Amino acid sequence: MKVLVINAGSSSLKYQLYDMTTEKVLAKGRVERIGLDASILTHEVENKPDMREVSEILDHTTAIKKVIEMLVHRKFGVLHSMDEIEAVGHRVVHGGESFSKSVLINEEVKLEIRRLFDLAPLHNPAHMMGITAVEDNLPNIPQAVVFDTAFHQTMPKHTYLYAIPTVLYRKHKVRRYGFHGTSHDYVSKAASHYLKRPLEELKLITCHIGNGASCTAIMNGKSYDTSMGMTPLEGLMMGTRSGDMDPAIVPYAISKEDLTMNEINSMLNKHSGLLGISGVSGDLREVIEAMDEGNNNAKVAFEMYVYRIKKYIGAYIAAMNGVDAIIFTAGVGENSSILRQKVCEDMSFFGIDFDEAKNVVRSSEPRDITSDESKVKVLVVPTNEELIIARDTYRLVLEAIETEKARAEAETFKPSELPEGSD
Amino acid sequence: MKVLVINAGSSSLKYQLYDMTTEKVLAKGRVERIGLDASILTHEVENKPDMREVSEILDHTTAIKKVIEMLVHRKFGVLHSMDEIEAVGHRVVHGGESFSKSVLINEEVKLEIRRLFDLAPLHNPAHMMGITAVEDNLPNIPQAVVFDTAFHQTMPKHTYLYAIPTVLYRKHKVRRYGFHGTSHDYVSKAASHYLKRPLEELKLITCHIGNGASCTAIMNGKSYDTSMGMTPLEGLMMGTRSGDMDPAIVPYAISKEDLTMNEINSMLNKHSGLLGISGVSGDLREVIEAMDEGNNNAKVAFEMYVYRIKKYIGAYIAAMNGVDAIIFTAGVGENSSILRQKVCEDMSFFGIDFDEAKNVVRSSEPRDITSDESKVKVLVVPTNEELIIARDTYRLVLEAIETEKARAEAETFKPSELPEGSD
Repeated sequence: MKVLVINAGSSSLKYQLYDMTTEKVLAKGRVERIGLDASILTHEVENKPDMREVSEILDHTTAIKKVIEMLVHRKFGVLHSMDEIEAVGHRVVHGGESFSKSVLINEEVKLEIRRLFDLAPLHNPAHMMGITAVEDNLPNIPQAVVFDTAFHQTMPKHTYLYAIPTVLYRKHKVRRYGFHGTSHDYVSKAASHYLKRPLEELKLITCHIGNGASCTAIMNGKSYDTSMGMTPLEGLMMGTRSGDMDPAIVPYAISKEDLTMNEINSMLNKHSGLLGISGVSGDLREVIEAMDEGNNNAKVAFEMYVYRIKKYIGAYIAAMNGVDAIIFTAGVGENSSILRQKVCEDMSFFGIDFDEAKNVVRSSEPRDITSDESKVKVLVVPTNEELIIARDTYRLVLEAIETEKARAEAETFKPSELPEGSD
Repeated sequence: MKVLVINAGSSSLKYQLYDMTTEKVLAKGRVERIGLDASILTHEVENKPDMREVSEILDHTTAIKKVIEMLVHRKFGVLHSMDEIEAVGHRVVHGGESFSKSVLINEEVKLEIRRLFDLAPLHNPAHMMGITAVEDNLPNIPQAVVFDTAFHQTMPKHTYLYAIPTVLYRKHKVRRYGFHGTSHDYVSKAASHYLKRPLEELKLITCHIGNGASCTAIMNGKSYDTSMGMTPLEGLMMGTRSGDMDPAIVPYAISKEDLTMNEINSMLNKHSGLLGISGVSGDLREVIEAMDEGNNNAKVAFEMYVYRIKKYIGAYIAAMNGVDAIIFTAGVGENSSILRQKVCEDMSFFGIDFDEAKNVVRSSEPRDITSDESKVKVLVVPTNEELIIARDTYRLVLEAIETEKARAEAETFKPSELPEGSD
């Protein structure tokens, strides 16, 4: 079965086409600047030249049409016909309290995703546009949605509630949801496999450090606490997001600078974090480069960034009364050896015996970067959110087929076959 | 020397009169409802009946006048004349970046406290009223100010900066200041004394848990990080304060409920914390009582309250790569054995071997509540912020007297006494 994975943003759309027999990516690409002038489609297929096309793509429906054209393109394509696409899986950022796992899309699911627009005003409406665009182009194909929040729905009340009047939870759904769930889920399972120990016995702390960043405490394979909150703003310091701060700063800054709600949100989400402190960039690589050239603001930004990961690791060790392995993943977590080193140095109290030589080895496989004697393991585990979406979609579609088959069999079942005495 | 300690609020004024030879409290009391109708003065002296007087006290100057009248009162007083008061020490909540220690008051100090009104609009103006009221009543007496923030001025940049655009720090002084400094300082010194180990060798985590609550990581006797931030709202869950939360909730709640800045501040400071979640009370004793009677909201509130202290302890152990002792102090920290137990249970990973029997013993002396083998000690150390204010005031006044003496001696010094060859 071939599954198309879609991650739709408000003016962009990323896609990957998977062959689920091999779990190989047949093609991937993105459409950018949807609805703006000069939209750009880039399309990559292994062993074929990359394709880049600039045209006018006014909406998501046209974007999906273009993607399908590209997938069946005589020269750049990988399919003979669009009928080969048997299912589509969508990333959806916010599933609220309604979704604790991936589901196939139906009218009810769409309604619920719409109900959650309020909680994820930048993301969920864009995802809905992606879903509708697929319906417009591939009307008879099953679609699934995979939520960033679903994995965290196992959190207990004392970790997901905020200490504010409960009316805000009841009336406006204000609580911790957590994000990057597909990634935390995936790397924790991969870690369990790598360590050859069942998830049910493990206490793990997964650090998904990319442009966005979050830590999760995972006990028995279940999310127990996570650093992102009602929105992806809370928690760690990120590329351009503030992470944790005194909430009183928000009304203070609004008053002092006479900001609108949009402006304060934009300041905290787009102009803070590494960028806000370093003044250089929201990209850790560029911050480290500036630091190495003697930029003191970049140095402070890096120290803050590291320090806050350390604090979350400590907090979650306390929360779980221990940890078996700490896992680094995502862009920064997988690639920045200096970040991992700085986070893990001076952590001997916890029983971490970091191995600097192992740390700098590059690999696309899960690996241990501590000594063999280290009581607590530190692993680097590459994440793959698209693959999880493809797998979930594939599984849900197969299940639906099975259910349908069972139903059809039940219908052909004859009353005369009932055993005697039954009623 | 007798030192009067004043803690002035906007409509209240607490006082304690110390004899510094013995460090005994000769009298203490409070004036409430200043500027409102039916102000109340309560006054306590050991071995004398408590005094309670309802009258009209329109301002802080009149309040101080009443306090002095009470101190020299023929029946309820402890002094023959007001001249016996030789110095006054004031608690001041916010010293910003200007004050890293207690100082004697002069015009410059008063100007600086006024400059900080913006950062502590509820506290510093009230403290200034207290200072002026003493000047009005006791014009020739030295006064000192002791700041809640001063002890935390040793924090390094990466722990005191927020990951927001640095212009907010430069222009509006937005940074972590921390509070309860006198208490964290005092109990850390008392712990060092109790443990018979020099402060310079110790890693301590002090948990000041009262109506307000904060944790501090203390390395080498210096505050390294603390949970309260620019304001006392950040950090632990408190009686009526939220503590940490996703900062994005603030603009969300403002928009959803159409709140003013005053209303959101009031919600987060006065209607949140234990009160907001339990719906019962901001007083932990009442929350525990309700929990024991089966109130589920009270149970969740208590679990959240405990959990967040645990997380800060873990975070600060990571920050310092270890901890020698965790210290509980202040109203709740000193008196709630169940709180201490719940925070410390399931903390064996850190080497805490909690002793439940020791935990329930009551004492006004510092004490250890872990087994003799416990790698990490947990102590209960009663705090005494008024005594620190009295001591600092006493010390500063003595130093000023010494300096004055030295100056006077230098003035009587004759040029003819210069050794030959000097110029």
